[in-house]
Amino acid sequence: MSLRVAFQGERGAFSTEAAHRMLGREIELVPCETFEEMFAVTERGECDACLAPIENTLFGPVYQNFDLLLRHHLTIVGETYLRIVHNLIAPPGTTLAEVRQVYSHPVALGQCRRFFVQSPQLRPVAAADTAGSVKRVMEIPEPGAAAIAGRYAAEVYGASLLLEGIEDDPQNFTRFFLLIREGGTIPPFSAPSEVNKTSIVFTLENRTGSLYRAMAVFALREIDLTKIESRPIHGRPWEYTFYLDFLGHPEELRVARALAHLAEFATGVRVLGTYRHGPAQPSLLFESGEPLVPAPPTPSC
Amino acid sequence: MSLRVAFQGERGAFSTEAAHRMLGREIELVPCETFEEMFAVTERGECDACLAPIENTLFGPVYQNFDLLLRHHLTIVGETYLRIVHNLIAPPGTTLAEVRQVYSHPVALGQCRRFFVQSPQLRPVAAADTAGSVKRVMEIPEPGAAAIAGRYAAEVYGASLLLEGIEDDPQNFTRFFLLIREGGTIPPFSAPSEVNKTSIVFTLENRTGSLYRAMAVFALREIDLTKIESRPIHGRPWEYTFYLDFLGHPEELRVARALAHLAEFATGVRVLGTYRHGPAQPSLLFESGEPLVPAPPTPSC
Repeated sequence: MSLRVAFQGERGAFSTEAAHRMLGREIELVPCETFEEMFAVTERGECDACLAPIENTLFGPVYQNFDLLLRHHLTIVGETYLRIVHNLIAPPGTTLAEVRQVYSHPVALGQCRRFFVQSPQLRPVAAADTAGSVKRVMEIPEPGAAAIAGRYAAEVYGASLLLEGIEDDPQNFTRFFLLIREGGTIPPFSAPSEVNKTSIVFTLENRTGSLYRAMAVFALREIDLTKIESRPIHGRPWEYTFYLDFLGHPEELRVARALAHLAEFATGVRVLGTYRHGPAQPSLLFESGEPLVPAPPTPSC
Repeated sequence: MSLRVAFQGERGAFSTEAAHRMLGREIELVPCETFEEMFAVTERGECDACLAPIENTLFGPVYQNFDLLLRHHLTIVGETYLRIVHNLIAPPGTTLAEVRQVYSHPVALGQCRRFFVQSPQLRPVAAADTAGSVKRVMEIPEPGAAAIAGRYAAEVYGASLLLEGIEDDPQNFTRFFLLIREGGTIPPFSAPSEVNKTSIVFTLENRTGSLYRAMAVFALREIDLTKIESRPIHGRPWEYTFYLDFLGHPEELRVARALAHLAEFATGVRVLGTYRHGPAQPSLLFESGEPLVPAPPTPSC
């Protein structure tokens, strides 16, 4: 039986490309309308895993998924990175000169601003997502309609690439978490590195120096932090939950001691997962539109 | 000549209510389509000030405005808080039983989820903003149409309140910055407290312990941090800019020394402004829909 992997959005979305690259071609992708539904079906065991975008190097954090990590009992077992390449996509036979209205997610449209300035005859039209915009222009005949999306969405719906790489800034990467329910089986997946990374979430008393003390727990043990994110706590205005990623495994003594030290004064600490992480070098990242890799050769962990 | 204050959205938006509460009834409100335009017209001197929502206690930070603070040369000269109360609003004469489709911003619709569960005959419809939804149902005749927005929007467009306070969570506050261009004149405004607060933005070398050292600069001088926010740096994937708010004025010796200390190792430090801040007690905050205060009695600073 193939692995059931939940994702948010339409088939052909960047999430589905990341899932195939990470988990191979043989998986069964289960589309969900919302991130909340994606977390819920994975928690209930209706899917074996889900792939959640967590941050983008231009847009910032996908804050719904930070909040959902706190509300659901899923474990992070892997991460992957995808370089986001935007393309102008239309039904086969459409010429560039015929295009007038261009559908896509507002974030994708905003990342192709220079392209629209240089092409004043084109009108950007906001839609719910990138892959769904390709689906739309393929299914609903509309003269002059095109979409902005990844090359993978064009493949999935049999559409044509009119222009490739039309984004303003090529330093555009999305980081995804591979999540399973607590106690579930870790599927085999591709991860180009063996170094371990851990994500935790914690809350602190609202007093002077509390964040300093939390940072000291790690710095005094030379544990490298790679990311900190704060999110508001519902019901406690102007108080925050902190999400922290660092290099290390809770079974290493210095990491175990750091977590015990943090628990001495934090009002709550939860380990969200420890996982082999993707490469830090942008040049080594997957690029959306590269040929898809076959199923991964090595099991995880 | 009355003070020209730029805001994003439609008249009646929560921003315009916050502007009137903070700056009085006599101001001239200048609507802008985007936050970017709001920053630009203020920077060019076409407006004397603008009011930027910066974070909400349920939704989190307004990321665009953090990024715009970095890209534009505006100074924060004040802050205010508004409790967000959502109401069901319709053209006068409409009864609750007649309502079928309810327009509002997706965030506002999401904050009234319980209301929609209890009223299955109502269909939420996503729109660009809350006040604009009231404007729409008043201007375009459509049987069964209502909107979710603040009471102030109902007043502005002469609509009726069908139900008040339909939000799931009353601990819903938005914090706004009052911004002027660098070197501009600080307008008089209401601020219920005299304690000074400072906002800065800084970047750090990507090495172990750098955030710890930045936190130490403040903690070792017992300076109280109220908020930290990280944002991705464009063109440098997986590196972050940090926004920090703390209680204190750069002219105080310990604060001046902390900022000089931070500059010793930070790769960039900029003070975004020092300002009298709003009250920390939610019970003392303005509530959307309270009677509007007259023009403020005391000049600022």
